[in-house]
Amino acid sequence: MDGVRWLDSGEQRIWRSFLRATSQIERELDRDLQERDGLTLVEYGILVTLSESEGRRMRMRGLADSVIVSKSRLSHQIARLERAGHVRREDCSEDRRGSWAVLTDQGAALLERAAAGHAAKVRARVFDRLTPDQVAVLGEVMAALEVAPVRRAGR
Amino acid sequence: MDGVRWLDSGEQRIWRSFLRATSQIERELDRDLQERDGLTLVEYGILVTLSESEGRRMRMRGLADSVIVSKSRLSHQIARLERAGHVRREDCSEDRRGSWAVLTDQGAALLERAAAGHAAKVRARVFDRLTPDQVAVLGEVMAALEVAPVRRAGR
Repeated sequence: MDGVRWLDSGEQRIWRSFLRATSQIERELDRDLQERDGLTLVEYGILVTLSESEGRRMRMRGLADSVIVSKSRLSHQIARLERAGHVRREDCSEDRRGSWAVLTDQGAALLERAAAGHAAKVRARVFDRLTPDQVAVLGEVMAALEVAPVRRAGR
Repeated sequence: MDGVRWLDSGEQRIWRSFLRATSQIERELDRDLQERDGLTLVEYGILVTLSESEGRRMRMRGLADSVIVSKSRLSHQIARLERAGHVRREDCSEDRRGSWAVLTDQGAALLERAAAGHAAKVRARVFDRLTPDQVAVLGEVMAALEVAPVRRAGR
């Protein structure tokens, strides 16, 4: 174990706090969305991402990169959204790089209804607990920790 | 939608960065642990939590609170760890508040093997990307965002 760069006690405390806080926030937002609008946090992220894409559509592969879930989990979530009528899938006629996910009018309407409650919840759970200086540094830190998405053709 | 306290554009940018960075980190650490030691990140957290508990054991309910997963997901993960021989379950004889999860010697040995690689990965993926000042503020922010665990009798 020589030469291992262990976390010191301060880093370990911060790291555990990071894991707890981020898990708690994710779970609370997920539960809140499910109770209020019947959507998981990942499904909400899918609808937001589609709503901001050209033609309200994305290839499945690009969508998986954007919402940072595995392709298998994305397929599961898209299937649920499709059964509920919020998303529809379209095959690519011109090439074989997989199908498109398309936001339906019903999905767009649901997103519009859900957005205000979700924004209020994020504000209360995250931003209202922090000072403006802490928010600014949090922004810097998350930008430094984020990996820029791979740009792929056809997204 | 009047009166809704929406996120402003700066907050929205920070919030999206937060979601991407935390998801990416979770997925990368999970993948790294699985490749190296065959453990998910949640399973690793379970072994760490048990290893630090008195008698290397916890009640299932307290364990679910500590590792911040639902009871159903915890049962699934504990069942996997039990099949692999890293944890065993013991029923409570004295009361009906549920069973204990106990870290086995094999589980403790696995944790010891996994810890150095995991610490190095956390350091490289998180702490090495930040300045000391950013690390300090990250600690403050996560402490402010964290909800203290409910203390229950018998944990």
